[in-house]
Amino acid sequence: MRILVSGFGTVGQGFAEVLALRNDLFKERYGKEVAIVCAMDSSSYAADPSGLSPKDLLERKKTTGKVGTDAYSDSLKVMDSVEYDLLVEVSPTDIVTGGAGLKNIRHALEAGKDVITVNKGPLALRFCELITLAKKNGCKFRFEGSVGGAMPIINLCRESLVGENISSMRGILNGTCNFILSKMDNGQSFEQALKEAQQMGYAETDPTNDIEGYDSACKVVILANSIFKRNVTFSDVKITGITSITSEAISLAASHNMVIRLIGEVSDDRLEVSPRLVPRGHPLSITGTLNAAQVVTDLAGPITVSGRGAGRVETASAILSDLISIMDDRKERGGRCQNP
Amino acid sequence: MRILVSGFGTVGQGFAEVLALRNDLFKERYGKEVAIVCAMDSSSYAADPSGLSPKDLLERKKTTGKVGTDAYSDSLKVMDSVEYDLLVEVSPTDIVTGGAGLKNIRHALEAGKDVITVNKGPLALRFCELITLAKKNGCKFRFEGSVGGAMPIINLCRESLVGENISSMRGILNGTCNFILSKMDNGQSFEQALKEAQQMGYAETDPTNDIEGYDSACKVVILANSIFKRNVTFSDVKITGITSITSEAISLAASHNMVIRLIGEVSDDRLEVSPRLVPRGHPLSITGTLNAAQVVTDLAGPITVSGRGAGRVETASAILSDLISIMDDRKERGGRCQNP
Repeated sequence: MRILVSGFGTVGQGFAEVLALRNDLFKERYGKEVAIVCAMDSSSYAADPSGLSPKDLLERKKTTGKVGTDAYSDSLKVMDSVEYDLLVEVSPTDIVTGGAGLKNIRHALEAGKDVITVNKGPLALRFCELITLAKKNGCKFRFEGSVGGAMPIINLCRESLVGENISSMRGILNGTCNFILSKMDNGQSFEQALKEAQQMGYAETDPTNDIEGYDSACKVVILANSIFKRNVTFSDVKITGITSITSEAISLAASHNMVIRLIGEVSDDRLEVSPRLVPRGHPLSITGTLNAAQVVTDLAGPITVSGRGAGRVETASAILSDLISIMDDRKERGGRCQNP
Repeated sequence: MRILVSGFGTVGQGFAEVLALRNDLFKERYGKEVAIVCAMDSSSYAADPSGLSPKDLLERKKTTGKVGTDAYSDSLKVMDSVEYDLLVEVSPTDIVTGGAGLKNIRHALEAGKDVITVNKGPLALRFCELITLAKKNGCKFRFEGSVGGAMPIINLCRESLVGENISSMRGILNGTCNFILSKMDNGQSFEQALKEAQQMGYAETDPTNDIEGYDSACKVVILANSIFKRNVTFSDVKITGITSITSEAISLAASHNMVIRLIGEVSDDRLEVSPRLVPRGHPLSITGTLNAAQVVTDLAGPITVSGRGAGRVETASAILSDLISIMDDRKERGGRCQNP
């Protein structure tokens, strides 16, 4: 299995680490190694058909700021120059144009390559186009880490809950907002809580994407399209962020044994991100930077899963889970007549 | 796929309902039907090689109290008289001897049949023997519904989290205890809360198995053996129930923003069921009859899943999920050279 990694920021580096850690797993489970044959960041690349050392890539990125020794001007030309089986697309999210990620994913799928991404831009903007392209070309296309980092919501629905009819989903899809709201539960003002989130590295200097609900809305789109087979895009989501939640509202909720959480919802009549009252003790009343998603099914009832919504290794673990699931599928297909 | 159902109480009836509801799913996914070719309860059975109607079975059970028209004295002889592929064992739990369930499961595995059960007795007492027997005879052996009903913890670990090293598990594994503790959070005494649980049908007339922690302990054993590959049995679990929790203890916890929950734990140094302090807003601070389990993994961190811990259709949904997973495995194997 030869992997091309496009993007070598936090998640790309986390993936390289995880791959090095799990080399034995791949040997045991599939009898073969998984190798990064090419790694690109925004301006440089490295390639080796026999596999690049994750450790060397990480070391070079750390010391020089670049993953590769060679410069490039067109990522598609780099991709064309490499023999690979699967693209791991983890370049920065651009929810206006889809950015380099969209271009790279399209190019890989058109060339018949499997793709794993955590890049919300292409998924929130062009989901149906990309799924159709993947199907047409017989490619696997997975994106567990794009929603809720390590929280395994998409694969849970695809695997363990495959026999259920899922009617709706409600979830805490942004850890930064949940951190801020949890701090407000403890008496902080919105401004204090936001400042602490920035100091802790949870919120960016410009926190707009998080606190206005745009990041959650991207995830609502991804879940609506992937779990509910809708055909929706970012502009279809009704979005209200958390900037106008006052300490008074939080106190009033608390006096009724409730908390306020930013909830993304996909249901028959709603595609929405908005602050909601949640009873204390409800699976969506959790505090801190965790993400959580609850699906309502016809047989099992409500099933909730929660986990870390971000983080270098945590998000990379979702890529690992997608990679194993693709390799299981491919093993079944490719190895069909080899091990009767 | 020909199924023999042993046990036709709440869960057996729920399974028959679910099978009728999902007939189309099996046709679509596997191109074939799933039929119940034999159903047994404690004293009667019905068998038909061409498949019994779930609706007829349910109707007869309802009107006559028996699933079948024929009496039997030895369940193993009934099993031997039927051609079947998979046993669904849902007879009553006996955590002292393993009961009829243990005998039936052994017999099916020895005959090379796949087995799905939600029966905690055989699993808590003879897990390793049964797993070894299944392996030796090339059988699939699944038991998702034995822990937490509809909560998909075992299959989650086996599927989505297969790339993770799971170091420990903590969970709310008994909905009756969680209901009682939640009511005590709201000011009821233990006795009042237990009485309400009995009135609601959550607790039995003799609530010992639940409130003394024995039921949770069975589930701890099943999780320790299945997820952590231990070789432990019921008597290895250190058990403290909830009977000595006072309203004062609940109030003291609340004054520190904590709740008391009955937690089952599997970790390197603990195999235990005991009341624990859980911070409000923690994924294990949930209220009501829900079950929840949190596994701690090396890459993804803590992952929590929650769902309904009991119920006719809810528990049957876990059997459905096991059935689909077995049929996926068998399809892969049997169909290997047919669809290249």
